[in-house]
Amino acid sequence: MKATVYVTIKQSVLDPQGNAVQGALHSMGFEEVGKVRVGKYLELELDTTDRAEAEERLKAMCEKLLANTVIEDYRFELN
Amino acid sequence: MKATVYVTIKQSVLDPQGNAVQGALHSMGFEEVGKVRVGKYLELELDTTDRAEAEERLKAMCEKLLANTVIEDYRFELN
Repeated sequence: MKATVYVTIKQSVLDPQGNAVQGALHSMGFEEVGKVRVGKYLELELDTTDRAEAEERLKAMCEKLLANTVIEDYRFELN
Repeated sequence: MKATVYVTIKQSVLDPQGNAVQGALHSMGFEEVGKVRVGKYLELELDTTDRAEAEERLKAMCEKLLANTVIEDYRFELN
Protein backbone atom coordinates (compact mmCIF):
# COMPACT_ATOMS: atom_id res chain seq x y z
CA MET A 1 0.00 0.00 0.00
CA LYS A 2 1.24 3.48 -0.78
CA ALA A 3 0.60 6.46 1.47
CA THR A 4 0.94 10.15 0.68
CA VAL A 5 1.28 12.54 3.61
CA TYR A 6 0.92 16.32 3.41
CA VAL A 7 2.26 18.41 6.29
CA THR A 8 1.37 22.10 6.25
CA ILE A 9 1.98 24.97 8.63
CA LYS A 10 -1.20 26.06 10.42
CA GLN A 11 -2.87 29.17 9.03
CA SER A 12 -2.34 31.06 12.30
CA VAL A 13 1.42 30.39 12.30
CA LEU A 14 3.93 32.57 10.45
CA ASP A 15 5.69 30.87 7.52
CA PRO A 16 9.06 32.59 7.00
CA GLN A 17 10.06 30.09 4.29
CA GLY A 18 6.88 30.91 2.39
CA ASN A 19 7.56 34.63 2.76
CA ALA A 20 11.10 34.13 1.43
CA VAL A 21 9.80 32.25 -1.60
CA GLN A 22 7.21 34.97 -2.22
CA GLY A 23 9.91 37.67 -2.03
CA ALA A 24 12.19 35.76 -4.38
CA LEU A 25 9.39 35.25 -6.92
CA HIS A 26 8.50 38.96 -6.76
CA SER A 27 12.11 39.97 -7.35
CA MET A 28 12.19 37.65 -10.36
CA GLY A 29 9.21 39.45 -11.89
CA PHE A 30 6.39 37.13 -10.79
CA GLU A 31 4.40 40.02 -9.32
CA GLU A 32 1.11 38.11 -9.40
CA VAL A 33 2.19 35.84 -6.56
CA GLY A 34 0.33 36.47 -3.32
CA LYS A 35 0.65 34.46 -0.12
CA VAL A 36 2.94 31.42 -0.32
CA ARG A 37 2.91 28.56 2.18
CA VAL A 38 5.55 25.85 2.15
CA GLY A 39 4.89 22.38 3.49
CA LYS A 40 6.20 18.85 3.30
CA TYR A 41 5.10 16.05 1.05
CA LEU A 42 5.97 12.44 1.90
CA GLU A 43 5.45 9.21 -0.01
CA LEU A 44 5.63 6.04 2.08
CA GLU A 45 5.41 2.42 1.05
CA LEU A 46 3.58 0.36 3.66
CA ASP A 47 3.90 -3.41 3.86
CA THR A 48 0.31 -4.03 4.93
CA THR A 49 -3.01 -4.88 3.32
CA ASP A 50 -5.36 -3.85 6.13
CA ARG A 51 -6.56 -0.38 5.17
CA ALA A 52 -8.13 0.48 8.53
CA GLU A 53 -5.01 -0.55 10.42
CA ALA A 54 -2.81 1.36 7.97
CA GLU A 55 -4.83 4.52 8.61
CA GLU A 56 -4.54 4.07 12.36
CA ARG A 57 -0.77 3.51 12.13
CA LEU A 58 -0.25 6.42 9.73
CA LYS A 59 -2.10 8.71 12.13
CA ALA A 60 0.29 7.64 14.88
CA MET A 61 3.34 8.21 12.63
CA CYS A 62 2.13 11.73 11.83
CA GLU A 63 1.38 12.60 15.45
CA LYS A 64 4.65 11.19 16.78
CA LEU A 65 7.20 12.03 14.09
CA LEU A 66 6.12 13.45 10.75
CA ALA A 67 4.21 16.52 11.92
CA ASN A 68 4.68 18.92 14.82
CA THR A 69 1.01 19.21 15.68
CA VAL A 70 1.54 22.38 17.72
CA ILE A 71 2.27 24.37 14.57
CA GLU A 72 1.49 21.97 11.71
CA ASP A 73 -1.54 20.25 10.25
CA TYR A 74 -1.35 16.98 8.38
CA ARG A 75 -3.50 14.87 6.11
CA PHE A 76 -2.84 11.66 4.26
CA GLU A 77 -4.15 9.52 1.43
CA LEU A 78 -3.89 5.75 1.03
CA ASN A 79 -3.70 4.15 -2.42
CA MET B 1 -6.46 31.60 -8.35
CA LYS B 2 -4.81 29.08 -6.05
CA ALA B 3 -1.93 26.86 -7.14
CA THR B 4 -0.54 23.77 -5.46
CA VAL B 5 2.98 22.71 -6.38
CA TYR B 6 4.54 19.33 -5.56
CA VAL B 7 8.32 18.99 -5.80
CA THR B 8 9.72 15.48 -5.48
CA ILE B 9 13.20 14.02 -5.76
CA LYS B 10 13.67 12.00 -8.96
CA GLN B 11 13.43 8.24 -8.57
CA SER B 12 17.04 7.78 -9.67
CA VAL B 13 18.37 10.19 -7.02
CA LEU B 14 19.16 9.14 -3.45
CA ASP B 15 16.91 10.65 -0.78
CA PRO B 16 18.86 10.77 2.51
CA GLN B 17 16.05 12.63 4.28
CA GLY B 18 13.62 9.89 3.27
CA ASN B 19 16.05 7.24 4.50
CA ALA B 20 16.38 9.06 7.83
CA VAL B 21 12.59 9.21 8.23
CA GLN B 22 12.32 5.50 7.38
CA GLY B 23 15.01 4.65 9.96
CA ALA B 24 13.30 6.76 12.62
CA LEU B 25 9.91 5.15 11.94
CA HIS B 26 11.48 1.67 12.14
CA SER B 27 13.14 2.47 15.45
CA MET B 28 9.75 3.66 16.76
CA GLY B 29 8.16 0.30 15.93
CA PHE B 30 6.61 1.10 12.56
CA GLU B 31 8.25 -1.89 10.91
CA GLU B 32 5.79 -1.96 8.00
CA VAL B 33 7.28 1.19 6.49
CA GLY B 34 9.21 0.57 3.26
CA LYS B 35 10.73 3.22 1.05
CA VAL B 36 10.11 6.82 2.10
CA ARG B 37 10.55 9.83 -0.20
CA VAL B 38 10.35 13.38 1.11
CA GLY B 39 9.36 16.28 -1.10
CA LYS B 40 8.05 19.82 -0.90
CA TYR B 41 4.50 21.01 -1.07
CA LEU B 42 3.73 24.66 -1.84
CA GLU B 43 0.47 26.60 -1.89
CA LEU B 44 0.56 29.87 -3.85
CA GLU B 45 -2.11 32.49 -4.32
CA LEU B 46 -2.00 33.97 -7.81
CA ASP B 47 -3.57 37.31 -8.65
CA THR B 48 -4.66 36.33 -12.15
CA THR B 49 -7.75 34.98 -13.86
CA ASP B 50 -6.17 33.69 -17.07
CA ARG B 51 -5.70 29.97 -16.51
CA ALA B 52 -3.46 29.34 -19.51
CA GLU B 53 -1.17 32.24 -18.60
CA ALA B 54 -1.09 31.10 -14.97
CA GLU B 55 0.06 27.64 -16.07
CA GLU B 56 2.77 29.12 -18.25
CA ARG B 57 3.99 31.39 -15.44
CA LEU B 58 3.87 28.61 -12.84
CA LYS B 59 5.97 26.40 -15.11
CA ALA B 60 8.56 29.19 -15.27
CA MET B 61 8.51 29.63 -11.47
CA CYS B 62 9.11 25.91 -10.99
CA GLU B 63 11.92 25.75 -13.54
CA LYS B 64 13.66 28.87 -12.26
CA LEU B 65 13.20 28.74 -8.49
CA LEU B 66 10.91 26.18 -6.90
CA ALA B 67 12.46 22.98 -8.24
CA ASN B 68 16.02 21.97 -9.06
CA THR B 69 15.18 20.12 -12.26
CA VAL B 70 18.53 18.30 -12.28
CA ILE B 71 17.47 16.18 -9.31
CA GLU B 72 13.81 17.05 -8.77
CA ASP B 73 10.51 16.60 -10.58
CA TYR B 74 7.57 18.95 -10.13
CA ARG B 75 3.89 19.04 -10.90
CA PHE B 76 1.20 21.57 -10.08
CA GLU B 77 -2.55 21.97 -9.88
CA LEU B 78 -4.59 25.13 -10.40
CA ASN B 79 -7.88 25.68 -8.57
